[in-house]
Amino acid sequence: MKKANAAIIIIGNEILSGRTRDVNVATISKWLNKLGVKLEEVRIVPDIEDYIVSTVNEIRKRFSYVFTTGGIGPTHDDITSKSIAKAFNLSYGYHKEAYEILEKHYGQKEFNDGRRKMAMLPDKALLIFNPSSVAPGFIVENVYCLPGVPSILESMLGGLNNKIIGGKKILDKTISLITVESEIASSLEKIQNKYKDVEIGSYPFFKKGKIGVSIVVRSTDERLISLTYQDIENFVKKKKIQKID
Amino acid sequence: MKKANAAIIIIGNEILSGRTRDVNVATISKWLNKLGVKLEEVRIVPDIEDYIVSTVNEIRKRFSYVFTTGGIGPTHDDITSKSIAKAFNLSYGYHKEAYEILEKHYGQKEFNDGRRKMAMLPDKALLIFNPSSVAPGFIVENVYCLPGVPSILESMLGGLNNKIIGGKKILDKTISLITVESEIASSLEKIQNKYKDVEIGSYPFFKKGKIGVSIVVRSTDERLISLTYQDIENFVKKKKIQKID
Repeated sequence: MKKANAAIIIIGNEILSGRTRDVNVATISKWLNKLGVKLEEVRIVPDIEDYIVSTVNEIRKRFSYVFTTGGIGPTHDDITSKSIAKAFNLSYGYHKEAYEILEKHYGQKEFNDGRRKMAMLPDKALLIFNPSSVAPGFIVENVYCLPGVPSILESMLGGLNNKIIGGKKILDKTISLITVESEIASSLEKIQNKYKDVEIGSYPFFKKGKIGVSIVVRSTDERLISLTYQDIENFVKKKKIQKID
Repeated sequence: MKKANAAIIIIGNEILSGRTRDVNVATISKWLNKLGVKLEEVRIVPDIEDYIVSTVNEIRKRFSYVFTTGGIGPTHDDITSKSIAKAFNLSYGYHKEAYEILEKHYGQKEFNDGRRKMAMLPDKALLIFNPSSVAPGFIVENVYCLPGVPSILESMLGGLNNKIIGGKKILDKTISLITVESEIASSLEKIQNKYKDVEIGSYPFFKKGKIGVSIVVRSTDERLISLTYQDIENFVKKKKIQKID
């Protein structure tokens, strides 16, 4: 069986304009790692219906799970629900369950046009429960639509755990060294060639006045991570490179 | 003439795994705004040659400028240069000018295999000067390859100003309100429909214990921004909504 993989589509002019830095990719990815699903691609696209429709239709065929973030609020620039309906060729209108949840929460008097818009979803969408701010996310086939506000998005992921069928947890181990990449490149390459099923990443850092390199070892196999890590520790000792926390 | 647009390809397992949050999109986008080039799409792809090659070949045909970030260092997981050579069907080997710059900087004794790798580029690539850490970026046609380390990337952008032919500066103005989106959605929509050439974004925030909405108005036309902003201020006053800085 093909391993479960995932992609994220960030729907957000505010990210493309440079106004806001995305933090949701890391949140979703770390959650997926635990469920054994590898995040393999991210797209950031503008708030333009045709753009969203064609991206969703390309991406949903290539990945087991697709997550969209942003664009499910009450304002004119929130066009995710309508775009997803169009991508799947579904009708778009009031979703009975969502409407009831929102009406109950706000009360008839406060349930204005803006709030009613958040109950407009693709026909037959399944709801994603929102414990923070009530307005639900939704699922159509393998596409999971979440809000863009990080704290709200994060609060909704837990409720999806039993919907995601992943594999073995993706584990990682990091070793940080006071060195430069060019000093360790050939040793690392040898180890990567020895352990093909482990992903070894090398990332320079500059922090607290120190220049160094973090080496990250990733795999679903704990034993392989240990073996790889041991080989790295061996050359670190041999070369007398200083480790830091 | 078609307006100049741009896309970014982030080459980075470390972003996809959730280990690192990207900050380069905002840096590049803000720089492009000033040059009058709109960032229209971002892709985050893994450190896999075929993946990079096909993404570059799709994206470079659709955008005036393409920026890649990451993967130009000395380690085994740095495969951007080789992938770009393959995408453009160019040979990949020591680049005379890059080799000389690096050799001069490190001195023959310190110029080890890892450092020499950073002089391996696609044939005929133009170099991008690196005032921070010497190892150059490079340009092939409309594709600009930059490093992933934010401070180094940032230091290299200034040197590219005269290579980018953009249009009018993209301007923006923000107004932040103590309100919720559903209270202002219909007023905002009317203004957006009145000023089609202005992009109006609405972004809820939760900070310093306050819940509010930032409205961002974007355009290359200062006069249109003022008119739009005035209309927003008018409904804000009428509805007695509190503004904050």
